[in-house]
Amino acid sequence: MGYHQYQQCIDACLRCAALCNHCASSCLQEADVKSMSTCIQLDMECAALCYAAAQLMSLGSGQARAICKLCAEICERCGAECSRHKDMQHCQECAAACKQCAEICRTMA
Amino acid sequence: MGYHQYQQCIDACLRCAALCNHCASSCLQEADVKSMSTCIQLDMECAALCYAAAQLMSLGSGQARAICKLCAEICERCGAECSRHKDMQHCQECAAACKQCAEICRTMA
Amino acid sequence: MGYHQYQQCIDACLRCAALCNHCASSCLQEADVKSMSTCIQLDMECAALCYAAAQLMSLGSGQARAICKLCAEICERCGAECSRHKDMQHCQECAAACKQCAEICRTMA
Amino acid sequence: MGYHQYQQCIDACLRCAALCNHCASSCLQEADVKSMSTCIQLDMECAALCYAAAQLMSLGSGQARAICKLCAEICERCGAECSRHKDMQHCQECAAACKQCAEICRTMA
Repeated sequence: MGYHQYQQCIDACLRCAALCNHCASSCLQEADVKSMSTCIQLDMECAALCYAAAQLMSLGSGQARAICKLCAEICERCGAECSRHKDMQHCQECAAACKQCAEICRTMA
Repeated sequence: MGYHQYQQCIDACLRCAALCNHCASSCLQEADVKSMSTCIQLDMECAALCYAAAQLMSLGSGQARAICKLCAEICERCGAECSRHKDMQHCQECAAACKQCAEICRTMA
Repeated sequence: MGYHQYQQCIDACLRCAALCNHCASSCLQEADVKSMSTCIQLDMECAALCYAAAQLMSLGSGQARAICKLCAEICERCGAECSRHKDMQHCQECAAACKQCAEICRTMA
Repeated sequence: MGYHQYQQCIDACLRCAALCNHCASSCLQEADVKSMSTCIQLDMECAALCYAAAQLMSLGSGQARAICKLCAEICERCGAECSRHKDMQHCQECAAACKQCAEICRTMA
């Protein structure tokens, strides 16, 4: 397995990582930051795992499936938290990316 | 400036990082690895800088433009080296991604 | 130049990245998260740049000095912000790591 | 659990990541690069996982233990490969760092 077999999952992970960073940074500019603290924490964890998953897949690592399993778990938690913040575009975009990434990572794992 | 203003450049950087990892890993499986050593070295450096650039842009950092300048430089060097290996699909794909990323990063910087 | 010539700077960057992550996560648990939002934002940017600098130095990259210059700048800003939060151990630890990293990166650059 | 409880493991992971990068880059300069190709591949995978583990630990993530388990596995494989190259200082340093990191990550997991 290498880049081309994993490409859809790599793309989903990288897009999710970028939208998690964007969401974290945008949450910090909201009026009520306190209510976004769980979201920001999960965004940071999710971005780290999504990028590591994309790296191992693009390197064709034998551990790619195992990290996709961990990645799916954090994406599900981050997506669930983000989806609660219905008025915030950055959270809704991040939730959609997390859910898509979780599904593709589950299939991969 | 945030994710949406930078999106094209973020996408180019993340795609380039993934194709650099793929190229490095694929080069290691070529018959004449020795002749690929510069390519592998530049792939590793380019992947690191492309990802850092994508991170700072998606975080809306004030240093996004400065790192895009460094990123453009390594993409140009990596793309030039990869483009020399005309028989290898992974190098040609990586060269194309590096050149596209270099152009967009130059515009951004 | 490679790992051994850069070792002190690599160690300072990696320590700073870890303490920035710790500071960001700890700030999110403070009672007044709003007042920590700039600190969290700079922690995320600083962690990203410190790690990229450590990567390029440990790879012996020709761009190591240039990224150390960027890294010194964000470390100075992050350290200045963290040092304002005198009652918080995580901020004081992060401020000390940022200042040390900034100094070593300046020397390197 | 946060940075201070994990500190020994974070330090081992970050040191291992840096020495893997150094080993990969140094292997590429050896006369017989072909014989180092497995080593370089594992160095790249190990560096990616070690850094992700350090990130999740320093963020106090609930998935820190799970990624330490994956990290221990790749460190064991990378350390075993590096230890075979007895004449190369970079491989011996990397092997020692991998073995130490694997042990601490096993304890953590």
